[in-house]
Amino acid sequence: MDIKELVSKMTLEEKAGLCSGADFWHTKAVPRLGVPSMMVSDGPHGLRKQDLQADHLGINESIKAVCFPAGCAAAASFDRNLLYKIGETLGNECQAEGVGVILGPAVNIKRSPLCGRNFEYYSEDPYLASELAANEIEGVQSKNVGTSLKHFFANNQEHRRMSSSSEMDERTAREIYLAAFEGAVKQAKPWTVMCSYNRINGVYAAQNRKSLTDILRKEWGFDGFVVSDWGAVNDRVPDLEAGLDLEMPTSFGLNDEKIVQAVQNGTLKESVLDRAVERILTQVQRFEQHRDKTAVFDREKDHALARKAAGECMVLLKNDAELLPLSKTAKLAFIGEFAAKPRYQGGGSSHINSSRVDSAWGLVQENCGEYPNISYAQGYDTNTDQISADLQQQAVQAAKEADTAVIFAGLPDTYESEGYDRTHMRLPENQAALIEAVTAANPHTVVVLHNGSPVEMPWLDRVQAVLEAYLGGQAVGGAQLDVLFGAVNPSGHLAETFPKKLEDNPSYLYYLGEGDKTEYREGVFVGYRYYDTKKMDVLFPFGHGLSYTAFSCDSMRLDKDHMRDTDTLTVQVQVTNTGKRTGKEVLQLYVAPPKGEVIRPIHELKGFEKVELAPGETKTVTFTLQKRAFAYYDMDLPDWRVESGTYTIELGESSRKILKTAQIAVTGTSKKLRKVTLDTTFGDLMQIPGAAEILQPLVQDYGITSDDSGDSTALGESTAQMMEQMLRYMPLRGMVAFGGGKVNYADAQAVAEQINRLPALQD
Amino acid sequence: MDIKELVSKMTLEEKAGLCSGADFWHTKAVPRLGVPSMMVSDGPHGLRKQDLQADHLGINESIKAVCFPAGCAAAASFDRNLLYKIGETLGNECQAEGVGVILGPAVNIKRSPLCGRNFEYYSEDPYLASELAANEIEGVQSKNVGTSLKHFFANNQEHRRMSSSSEMDERTAREIYLAAFEGAVKQAKPWTVMCSYNRINGVYAAQNRKSLTDILRKEWGFDGFVVSDWGAVNDRVPDLEAGLDLEMPTSFGLNDEKIVQAVQNGTLKESVLDRAVERILTQVQRFEQHRDKTAVFDREKDHALARKAAGECMVLLKNDAELLPLSKTAKLAFIGEFAAKPRYQGGGSSHINSSRVDSAWGLVQENCGEYPNISYAQGYDTNTDQISADLQQQAVQAAKEADTAVIFAGLPDTYESEGYDRTHMRLPENQAALIEAVTAANPHTVVVLHNGSPVEMPWLDRVQAVLEAYLGGQAVGGAQLDVLFGAVNPSGHLAETFPKKLEDNPSYLYYLGEGDKTEYREGVFVGYRYYDTKKMDVLFPFGHGLSYTAFSCDSMRLDKDHMRDTDTLTVQVQVTNTGKRTGKEVLQLYVAPPKGEVIRPIHELKGFEKVELAPGETKTVTFTLQKRAFAYYDMDLPDWRVESGTYTIELGESSRKILKTAQIAVTGTSKKLRKVTLDTTFGDLMQIPGAAEILQPLVQDYGITSDDSGDSTALGESTAQMMEQMLRYMPLRGMVAFGGGKVNYADAQAVAEQINRLPALQD
Repeated sequence: MDIKELVSKMTLEEKAGLCSGADFWHTKAVPRLGVPSMMVSDGPHGLRKQDLQADHLGINESIKAVCFPAGCAAAASFDRNLLYKIGETLGNECQAEGVGVILGPAVNIKRSPLCGRNFEYYSEDPYLASELAANEIEGVQSKNVGTSLKHFFANNQEHRRMSSSSEMDERTAREIYLAAFEGAVKQAKPWTVMCSYNRINGVYAAQNRKSLTDILRKEWGFDGFVVSDWGAVNDRVPDLEAGLDLEMPTSFGLNDEKIVQAVQNGTLKESVLDRAVERILTQVQRFEQHRDKTAVFDREKDHALARKAAGECMVLLKNDAELLPLSKTAKLAFIGEFAAKPRYQGGGSSHINSSRVDSAWGLVQENCGEYPNISYAQGYDTNTDQISADLQQQAVQAAKEADTAVIFAGLPDTYESEGYDRTHMRLPENQAALIEAVTAANPHTVVVLHNGSPVEMPWLDRVQAVLEAYLGGQAVGGAQLDVLFGAVNPSGHLAETFPKKLEDNPSYLYYLGEGDKTEYREGVFVGYRYYDTKKMDVLFPFGHGLSYTAFSCDSMRLDKDHMRDTDTLTVQVQVTNTGKRTGKEVLQLYVAPPKGEVIRPIHELKGFEKVELAPGETKTVTFTLQKRAFAYYDMDLPDWRVESGTYTIELGESSRKILKTAQIAVTGTSKKLRKVTLDTTFGDLMQIPGAAEILQPLVQDYGITSDDSGDSTALGESTAQMMEQMLRYMPLRGMVAFGGGKVNYADAQAVAEQINRLPALQD
Repeated sequence: MDIKELVSKMTLEEKAGLCSGADFWHTKAVPRLGVPSMMVSDGPHGLRKQDLQADHLGINESIKAVCFPAGCAAAASFDRNLLYKIGETLGNECQAEGVGVILGPAVNIKRSPLCGRNFEYYSEDPYLASELAANEIEGVQSKNVGTSLKHFFANNQEHRRMSSSSEMDERTAREIYLAAFEGAVKQAKPWTVMCSYNRINGVYAAQNRKSLTDILRKEWGFDGFVVSDWGAVNDRVPDLEAGLDLEMPTSFGLNDEKIVQAVQNGTLKESVLDRAVERILTQVQRFEQHRDKTAVFDREKDHALARKAAGECMVLLKNDAELLPLSKTAKLAFIGEFAAKPRYQGGGSSHINSSRVDSAWGLVQENCGEYPNISYAQGYDTNTDQISADLQQQAVQAAKEADTAVIFAGLPDTYESEGYDRTHMRLPENQAALIEAVTAANPHTVVVLHNGSPVEMPWLDRVQAVLEAYLGGQAVGGAQLDVLFGAVNPSGHLAETFPKKLEDNPSYLYYLGEGDKTEYREGVFVGYRYYDTKKMDVLFPFGHGLSYTAFSCDSMRLDKDHMRDTDTLTVQVQVTNTGKRTGKEVLQLYVAPPKGEVIRPIHELKGFEKVELAPGETKTVTFTLQKRAFAYYDMDLPDWRVESGTYTIELGESSRKILKTAQIAVTGTSKKLRKVTLDTTFGDLMQIPGAAEILQPLVQDYGITSDDSGDSTALGESTAQMMEQMLRYMPLRGMVAFGGGKVNYADAQAVAEQINRLPALQD
């Protein structure tokens, strides 16, 4: 049945009912009209389907599923195809389990390393986050299962997440926090978008017409439904009007009743309700009409993908003297509880009841013929931060007896979870002490990290290699062996900067805010936009990642040297594997703006490609850049605008390791008109074509000429320069006070009006 | 005649005329009523009186006068008495010259090292700036001459200074930018305050009723007149209404006419005009009635004070291996043009036509018997940044032949001036190269700096000693010899942080702004408030300054360990000179707030004392702290508010060298009431005395109890912690969605109302 027709047959009560859940995980059915209930389940890196025992908090046990690398890890792959593949697999799992929408991906910007939920998120860079999310969404939805892009938006802390207001200027919102969603919505058209708990500049996300309707739908063309984060509805009727379609979980009929009353007493137009119902039913029907009843949730097969994925995500941060890869027959000590019980996912709604978990030590034990000389020592206890002298001593002993020590370190479960934020950026004290002790015993030490967000590494200089495994999913142990022993050549790159210390973070002073107000004072200077512009030392820059092979970029060519902002620029680069192993390079394209009137980051990521190369192989990689790659969000227009000038195209292996640069002259086509008043400065007036001729008589009267022969020695050498600047910064009205009595206000006003009539100031 | 009576006898035209200058430097006379004209002249570190040839720009030659250390130097003295003495001397000079008001001091905050006018300003700290200004004002006004505290306010860049808007939140304005004026106005009651050119949050300072009237007069009790910076009037009638009394310079009658018309057509109340005229005449009369016709401008005597003052201001930044003081008979090379022609003042309206200028090399030549072994090499040319191989080679040769090289370096005139800002923080290239070359030839090198604002010192590790002479006034050469050879023991301390590089500055990203909008995004985190809170490495911290002797602080005692914010805290400390020379220590008292709800700097300067001690001598120094020492500006109240908690009193030799700490429990007495709504979180509710009892039945229904025995192993170890935080951050309305259907909105609303009736929430 046509959706509009279906809606027309529904009663007011049925329609109101459709706008909230039947329970924790289902939309309501309308049996008399053949409308089925649809199940939704948590994502985003695995299917958390609560089956029989769905409780009123939605946190009890779920079905066994496959835990893929968390967002923090997946993003480090810089691999669109991998994200698509994971999405496709999740989509298939949903079909097998009858789940219509999986709640993810989550693209919130990593504003601070402390955000408890960073492990679910992709990046500090909105372009990277958005590209990866788009591919995951397309993967899921290729299986006719919906996604819910979340948490929309400006939800960058867990602290007071249901009441806190994220306060930022429009430009910051557009360029950073909204941009992470924008590309994904436009490219991949998610079936649903989930609105966040927080407020934005005082208005609850659930009630934010500007974000939910004006931007999301009208500007970006979103055509799915908006669902509330569970419990995010603050006031049902205004929320519905603002563009929040589906409330989850159930309100036990209380909010349905409010909607009914509002329609009945005329405070809510029924058409607003109809619109929401149409949107919800469209997706319910879409799922039903394309069910794949043949789909099978093959946990073993998906586990294999999880292992492959985890291998693609690991970031080799440091590898002095090519300590890695290790030889399988070398005498090694695996140290640390995470070797036996890896931390591979975070806490909260994304927590998967994993079908199986591979640990590095477990796999070594299972294959001891292959790895004959590896010992294990627990090293620390994840249930406490206290140092255990015994555990540490055993680890030191094991390290002493080994050629190389491999410490499996990271953050325990309680450090990172949905619901609360970290309070510092350090490893637990017992792990830091363990690293000190082990490296004292054996300088050939590798640290393998398990964490959802950067940690400080005061011990970095003491270790020879660091492998960042992030939260790599249930198959992480196998992937760690793959990378440590060289079966997989690491190719992950950091999707976030690792600062030296927490205080270096741009949001440090203001993070968590005051009471329910969190100011985003750093504006667009998030992550590398801040560190790079302020030329700060960092531990590891955005985009950093080593390989067991080496690459070179031999040429970078632009298809033009000047363009209008409506043109497309093509950038081609040749990349060669100059080493001895097959490997994958992540080429990153940054755009650096000219020094213009607008305050901008020194450069921004506008393209990336991951490319696999056999030893000696060369490939040509092509990037295309369009207006947005050069634009900032102009709050006066208000729209995206390109300042005319010479932009630098930077090709890098990280934001700090730029390999090639080239320049492109870009002409902006947006016109910004500013009418002249008595307060307009002479410097600004002189920029207007034709104004100089009008001003000349006035300036002459002003009495300053270039050959002014005042007694300048007595005035100091800077006086001439000062006088020049005085005139430049002086408003037109200044002619009255400084014109020696020769100019009156009417004269000055007449000049202003004359300039306003110049062609340059007409639309 | 009584002022009110006088005003009543004036015609409308006469009154309007009184509100603007007769010319560039005089108020108008009204001869028929015996009202004289009053002359005003530029300050603040010397009398710039334009006599016969006052031109229409006010920049031509002025009378010979004595140039005292500029504000940048004077502040480094940390010496209230010195500032008073300089003020007193300037006041006497004004009496001798018939000048009724000297235009200064200037207390604008040094937001960025780049501000072209920093050399005139005191500090990055408002308390220090305000205390010093108060003493200079009291000194001048003790001679019955007025001052003009300027530039009011938020004028922290020269770039677009006549059109730019300084955009900041109220708390930042109150705690930093207004605070620099507040103490001085309240303590010293300047005759006049000068409003600045810029706009503040969009409103011209000249038209800013909030600052000119509400804050300055009503809150702070200012009773003098407000004068415009020269040309700052943007729209005469609204400016007058906002509180701008005197327009300077003359408007050639044009604005007088506007005032007359506005009164005649009823758009301006005549009482507003009368009020301004009364204020102006009060000060004119005050000057006339207390003229000191016997006063003599004794340039030689005042020059001697200038030398003494310059000695008090110099900051010994570095002195490895006690290289300084030097022996007068040592073989020395004085290198650098500034040895012969010191830079001792900045460009612009403060530029003094000095009665005489002492250079270090000149004095050495005059007293060659005393200094028999000193050579001189020019080293560089201040007219260019280009390296002169010849000059550099001569300098290297001189350095090679000497025991110690003394390089007189710094910023040339064109680098620092009113009217424009610096573009970088480096020394000229030829000077930096000279330092490299000279130190390569002779590691025993001293650098004496002449600059109005911090410079980067990439060469710092190569030199053994650095003496910061700032812009030390016309007697700087003598003072340099005094300090270099130990006749004066240096006692200056930095009134500003020297960052390692420009990019480290908190305003770096936003300084100068976009077009006419400059955002003060760093808020209250200016200077050390930023560097210290972010734990950044700096070149030299705020308050830093070495001595030829050493001091110890042996005890710090607080007269109480807890107090209400209405009490006064007395802090006593014993300081001893443990070295072999008489010297002066600058003790600094910082207050560090507890971790509360409000985001605050890690500590703030709230007291300082300079104390002179003979070798072995001990003195007791007493500080008193009142409410403001603990308070922040609360925008909700709106008023100063003290958060209850334990504050740390820190006694330091700099902001980074804290010698003693002690704690004081302070109870805030301001009440902040926040009514409870359905959006109030459980965490906040539980803070309200009596609320827990009301909430208990609801929370029980919520179904979370501490002995919840869900299958927690499957949920991850962080889940319990997450659930606890979920409840804490959940709003009251969350009970409906998460209460398992047992709570409805009416129940929740009833609870909110019940809590709102609790005694704790009543006024």
